Amino acid sequence: MSLSPFVPTPKLDDYRERFKDHFKLERRADGVLLAQAHTLGGSIQLSVENHRALGQLFKTIGADPENELLILTGSGEHFMAALDPDGFALERENLQHWAYEYAYKDGRINVSALVNDLEIPTIGLLNGPGFHTEIVLMCDISLAAQGATIFDLHYDIGSVPADGIHNCFQELLGVKRAAYALLTGQAITAEQALEWGMVNEVVPRDELIARSYAIADHIMTQPRTVRRLTTQIVRRPWKQRIVNDLDGGFGIQMFGHVAKKKAVHGEGHIRSTVDYVREGRENNFD
Amino acid sequence: MSLSPFVPTPKLDDYRERFKDHFKLERRADGVLLAQAHTLGGSIQLSVENHRALGQLFKTIGADPENELLILTGSGEHFMAALDPDGFALERENLQHWAYEYAYKDGRINVSALVNDLEIPTIGLLNGPGFHTEIVLMCDISLAAQGATIFDLHYDIGSVPADGIHNCFQELLGVKRAAYALLTGQAITAEQALEWGMVNEVVPRDELIARSYAIADHIMTQPRTVRRLTTQIVRRPWKQRIVNDLDGGFGIQMFGHVAKKKAVHGEGHIRSTVDYVREGRENNFD
Amino acid sequence: MSLSPFVPTPKLDDYRERFKDHFKLERRADGVLLAQAHTLGGSIQLSVENHRALGQLFKTIGADPENELLILTGSGEHFMAALDPDGFALERENLQHWAYEYAYKDGRINVSALVNDLEIPTIGLLNGPGFHTEIVLMCDISLAAQGATIFDLHYDIGSVPADGIHNCFQELLGVKRAAYALLTGQAITAEQALEWGMVNEVVPRDELIARSYAIADHIMTQPRTVRRLTTQIVRRPWKQRIVNDLDGGFGIQMFGHVAKKKAVHGEGHIRSTVDYVREGRENNFD
Amino acid sequence: MSLSPFVPTPKLDDYRERFKDHFKLERRADGVLLAQAHTLGGSIQLSVENHRALGQLFKTIGADPENELLILTGSGEHFMAALDPDGFALERENLQHWAYEYAYKDGRINVSALVNDLEIPTIGLLNGPGFHTEIVLMCDISLAAQGATIFDLHYDIGSVPADGIHNCFQELLGVKRAAYALLTGQAITAEQALEWGMVNEVVPRDELIARSYAIADHIMTQPRTVRRLTTQIVRRPWKQRIVNDLDGGFGIQMFGHVAKKKAVHGEGHIRSTVDYVREGRENNFD
Amino acid sequence: MSLSPFVPTPKLDDYRERFKDHFKLERRADGVLLAQAHTLGGSIQLSVENHRALGQLFKTIGADPENELLILTGSGEHFMAALDPDGFALERENLQHWAYEYAYKDGRINVSALVNDLEIPTIGLLNGPGFHTEIVLMCDISLAAQGATIFDLHYDIGSVPADGIHNCFQELLGVKRAAYALLTGQAITAEQALEWGMVNEVVPRDELIARSYAIADHIMTQPRTVRRLTTQIVRRPWKQRIVNDLDGGFGIQMFGHVAKKKAVHGEGHIRSTVDYVREGRENNFD
Amino acid sequence: MSLSPFVPTPKLDDYRERFKDHFKLERRADGVLLAQAHTLGGSIQLSVENHRALGQLFKTIGADPENELLILTGSGEHFMAALDPDGFALERENLQHWAYEYAYKDGRINVSALVNDLEIPTIGLLNGPGFHTEIVLMCDISLAAQGATIFDLHYDIGSVPADGIHNCFQELLGVKRAAYALLTGQAITAEQALEWGMVNEVVPRDELIARSYAIADHIMTQPRTVRRLTTQIVRRPWKQRIVNDLDGGFGIQMFGHVAKKKAVHGEGHIRSTVDYVREGRENNFD
Repeated sequence: MSLSPFVPTPKLDDYRERFKDHFKLERRADGVLLAQAHTLGGSIQLSVENHRALGQLFKTIGADPENELLILTGSGEHFMAALDPDGFALERENLQHWAYEYAYKDGRINVSALVNDLEIPTIGLLNGPGFHTEIVLMCDISLAAQGATIFDLHYDIGSVPADGIHNCFQELLGVKRAAYALLTGQAITAEQALEWGMVNEVVPRDELIARSYAIADHIMTQPRTVRRLTTQIVRRPWKQRIVNDLDGGFGIQMFGHVAKKKAVHGEGHIRSTVDYVREGRENNFD
Repeated sequence: MSLSPFVPTPKLDDYRERFKDHFKLERRADGVLLAQAHTLGGSIQLSVENHRALGQLFKTIGADPENELLILTGSGEHFMAALDPDGFALERENLQHWAYEYAYKDGRINVSALVNDLEIPTIGLLNGPGFHTEIVLMCDISLAAQGATIFDLHYDIGSVPADGIHNCFQELLGVKRAAYALLTGQAITAEQALEWGMVNEVVPRDELIARSYAIADHIMTQPRTVRRLTTQIVRRPWKQRIVNDLDGGFGIQMFGHVAKKKAVHGEGHIRSTVDYVREGRENNFD
Repeated sequence: MSLSPFVPTPKLDDYRERFKDHFKLERRADGVLLAQAHTLGGSIQLSVENHRALGQLFKTIGADPENELLILTGSGEHFMAALDPDGFALERENLQHWAYEYAYKDGRINVSALVNDLEIPTIGLLNGPGFHTEIVLMCDISLAAQGATIFDLHYDIGSVPADGIHNCFQELLGVKRAAYALLTGQAITAEQALEWGMVNEVVPRDELIARSYAIADHIMTQPRTVRRLTTQIVRRPWKQRIVNDLDGGFGIQMFGHVAKKKAVHGEGHIRSTVDYVREGRENNFD
Repeated sequence: MSLSPFVPTPKLDDYRERFKDHFKLERRADGVLLAQAHTLGGSIQLSVENHRALGQLFKTIGADPENELLILTGSGEHFMAALDPDGFALERENLQHWAYEYAYKDGRINVSALVNDLEIPTIGLLNGPGFHTEIVLMCDISLAAQGATIFDLHYDIGSVPADGIHNCFQELLGVKRAAYALLTGQAITAEQALEWGMVNEVVPRDELIARSYAIADHIMTQPRTVRRLTTQIVRRPWKQRIVNDLDGGFGIQMFGHVAKKKAVHGEGHIRSTVDYVREGRENNFD
Repeated sequence: MSLSPFVPTPKLDDYRERFKDHFKLERRADGVLLAQAHTLGGSIQLSVENHRALGQLFKTIGADPENELLILTGSGEHFMAALDPDGFALERENLQHWAYEYAYKDGRINVSALVNDLEIPTIGLLNGPGFHTEIVLMCDISLAAQGATIFDLHYDIGSVPADGIHNCFQELLGVKRAAYALLTGQAITAEQALEWGMVNEVVPRDELIARSYAIADHIMTQPRTVRRLTTQIVRRPWKQRIVNDLDGGFGIQMFGHVAKKKAVHGEGHIRSTVDYVREGRENNFD
Repeated sequence: MSLSPFVPTPKLDDYRERFKDHFKLERRADGVLLAQAHTLGGSIQLSVENHRALGQLFKTIGADPENELLILTGSGEHFMAALDPDGFALERENLQHWAYEYAYKDGRINVSALVNDLEIPTIGLLNGPGFHTEIVLMCDISLAAQGATIFDLHYDIGSVPADGIHNCFQELLGVKRAAYALLTGQAITAEQALEWGMVNEVVPRDELIARSYAIADHIMTQPRTVRRLTTQIVRRPWKQRIVNDLDGGFGIQMFGHVAKKKAVHGEGHIRSTVDYVREGRENNFD
């Protein structure tokens, strides 16, 4: 016996409870874990709290050796289309403090944890229209619901788009389409996203989880080591991308944000900014 | 007051005049600058003089803090489909001298200045068929006129395609399509370019400038700092690409060029080489 | 006269004979070399012997200054759809020995030799369905026969896909589509491959060689130096890709392979694994 | 108030207890945390348990926003010069299982967590001779005790040196000195390490912690945001290095390890291998 | 004759006058240009005006084809050891405005122009103690005066060191020594800098310019093309470094700066911060 | 038995004879191969023939699986300090033809083959003063004879230094010292090279081979797979360096060379250029 014992790893029963306000967690006997992000059981309403919880969850899942594959999705009709009405009070109260503690630090951890803390394959499900779609698009495999749209609202709310969405769009769309999407707020339909290689499949929204289980079943046919080593191979471009461009890009975003001396995450502000998406238009100027 | 004064920056009234033989410059009150390259008021006829003027213009625009967004295009029906009849006399007279002073030096500056000297967003308009399209395709956003075609003629005139066009094609098309386009002189239609992600929109030629103003209007809705910092984010892949591959690639091109001991920019030579484009064919061998 | 003579370079008459069990070699007077890989005159049946012969051939062709362009293809209806029944006896006998000597060493040389040992342009012809398609897809220009399909079977036979196929798919498909193709064994049709930019043209199988000669004829219109220098330009992304990701990726694959303590290249195993391709299905789970 | 609460972050009182068999943790009121790795209170004796605990600790420290600077060191006269006698029983019992679960997975997490999970400045103290010195040498600032020596024993125990030590030596020594040190087991004295830029200062062993507090005091003179953002700047080369070379290199190491079909972490084996270090010699062959 | 004339290039007589408040410019008949930065004829006292003038000068020199080699230095006993008393009034008046217009924009241009706008070889002379030494250390060849010291004061005035000084230190010192120098304000003597490879020679201060002319004479023995092409070769690592790390790093610096909501360039503040340098100490805490 | 046989690999008895005019080859029973480059049995006198033979040898050694470690050195008192009097007749006769066929093609193959074609560890011995020292300095381990000096003469003969020597100097010396050495022709003594990390050991010339065998003996204590996989780890930075900078750099060199329209490899020209080395001076201008 070794002179010192193992430090225990997290147990699902514990962390399912700890994260229950933000995620519904279900794990099959074979280790396939489904994480459904939600706010009060419905679609995500972004707040500093659930923003931080995301990276915390990824790190916890990654530390539990009993997880074998992660399926990640939102809840309800939208992936993320609204803010928690008081979710950014901290930004309004102290922009400078918020900027490092809740935006720069937590935001980089979210992206880094998805890519660096999970040894296991990941399948992201875009269940509906949303921003911050990098979270499901940077999974190894991504499926979108029919009717989902991908768009980035940063520029239109006066923020430099560089908190990971730029990594995601530049990796998946290339420099030309990414620049246009980021500068114009282009709403990209699921079908267009499929054609452009942003997602792997488009399925009806109510079949999304079943389809992801079918793919998971296939992946689970191979042994643990093969699954996990293959994951390192297929995910490597994401690891390289975020090392090269996340810390600095996000610094540029925060510089611009703090220099404006005003909060941008007003709930109404966001809502009106993305009206065009709800109306099925490609941007807010055509 | 500081001990020493600012060194003055360029004024539009001055440089509009200085560049008038090569560019028609118009600036809106909000700083949106339209630069239309021309030769004698019509489509560009390439010469060592206007080749050099391009980088000089970019550096001058970049040095003037009153410019806020650049729209760059050619004039007339073609983007660049002909040579100034005497535009490469210097090449014929002294190939070796021309190779460094007018080709290698000026050519690298053109590409580098577009990417490195302009802090502001750029919109490139491909107004018609042409070579050296990297100049508008390496802008942040690119629009093409219906009927425009993109092709590279270097290989077919016996020159190694590596003066920036390779950066452009490899970045936008990937290695496989770029190799084919560069080796076969493939004429890529505006519609194909849109599908392949080389341009963001295709519009009728006479609506090109209006459309670019509409996009510019949208970009101008955000403050100066947001616009300029976002530019650094969306343009970063171009900066990386040219650092990695421009100096050396261009050196290889010039090596091949000088080793042949003959000028390739004969006006008739070019014209006959690109006949297939005029005839609407994809290359000169099918 | 120099004090010491040149060391002779290989002669086609010699190496055509030496490689005749694996490749049929024909060279035109202008140096265009057609290499048709075969097993007993028909489609390739993979073995450790012909696996090794590939890199040996590339290095020999590269060392002969009389070769000017390589057209590489398989034979018969399939590109590579079966194993030599006893072709992997060495793997079964001594997995660990095989792993370095025949898999890791030879496999890396195959990919590296294609990219690094040939100064001349290469055209790869995918003559039918197959695995190890990276060999023709990593040529400078690639054509596929109608009815050919591209798929990777590594994951489905319990092997980490990282012997060069990952370089190929990630370079040509991007991270998202590559992850899906590698994890699900997706059979990509020639038409889909064309749309996604994996191949440059799709032609009927019996026109494949003629078409490649037509392209070769065009490439041969330019002088030797221009052809060869242009090759360095258009191939550079492949050189960078394999330096970054081949040695390490392949090490991960072999780690997974040896850790399983069993051979995966059973002839029947492969056959049953790829039944879905023969049946025209996209994968083995739908 | 936001609709959902924060998920709690770790508390020192909890994790100090949880990690007490592997680390002695002390935190000053200003957040400067001293972590002294130990085995039974003395110098580290490596085992799979404390190997895993290292990454677990880094991730826990990184998740606690009350930590502001980490000082990391070993205990006693050696940094790490012995194995826990039964510390690698798992390797002997099932080499293949150990290779992924305890070596490849945990080992990569250790290095990645040091670099990616800690937003705060780190000071590593090499308290005596040791292997696995990358853990203190890859801190932002590194101090060595007089009499400490740095050496890598992987090659001499028949293992490919690529679990992070190669990243460390190649970054700090350059390719030439790193190759020699890794291939010959060169014992590098503290003074030599200082001259070569592997460490920043050499001090008597009993002054090591005091000196690190003096440097920490200086770093703590600046505000939290400045400290943490500066950390991202000075640490960036490590982030890039491990993304490029850790996953693949470690895969190569494990491939070689598993292919040998025997455990290398025999306690006596290690001891005899490093006798030369104890004897003050540079390697075991001079 | 071409259809359009050349746009004129700058003439020394004009720009010598234009920059005279910031630089004393002298050019030999062979094109070797000596630029001595000064404030009122003495050592540089940093202000937003001369900060901006630096990049303006580099771009002007680069645009004049009659320049063949640049020798760049300061004036008097210090390279840069003081601020213009009112030189940062703009920062105090409007931190946010200053941050982009005068710090982020001008500062990046300074570094980029040195590396990207000058085709000609550069020799930097560190004439005495100073901060912002990257300007002479990032020249192709660098000489230091005996008694000169190199140090960075950013961290000690509460600013993240990332305006180019981090590029310079990380390139020349490596990650370990750079982290220490940036975090502790380490004053590096000329002799230490020589040993560490930051400068190429150390000579008495009054022999600095003569020595640089001797080296320039040697460089000028070769033809213009050889000199300028060699410059591209030897400077390439700097080009790569700044593309990778300048825009983002500087964004992080500005984020930290603006988040503090206070100016840091107080003249007295700087003076007291660097007292230790004047006193010949290595840092302000020993 | 497989359906097709192995293609035979080279046999030492054959290639020892084939290369005997350029290299003396001796192999121990354990596979340690000593290759001594020579001209007529004495120090190398560079010619297009032996320049080409180097890469041919590397590729042949790499193709023979019985080689286990390469020791590479020159002969006599100099490593390479003279030209074969008629060794560059081909350059004089047809500069353009020579430039691609013998300089660009063969020169790149030499460097690439050393790094990419040899799976085995390499030890380079610098037996005396010389140029083209990259060949021994880019081996995994390098030893220098007392009295050897390293210098590059390209710039002083009017050639851009970029045929691999720039890769070597920039990797081993960093950007600052490399620029100086390349621009000034600096003769670096063996002792200086040791201090700067260009070589691993300096020993008397007549002990060089014995010392290399002692190191080889140590390396040979580990199994074939460990040796060869470790080689991939320690050599990786060289592979990356040459992919990034060799093809393009060499193209720039050749561009400059051909643009001058004159041969530079005159035997007397070289001799007079390097007189300063023979005289023990650091360069030709002090």
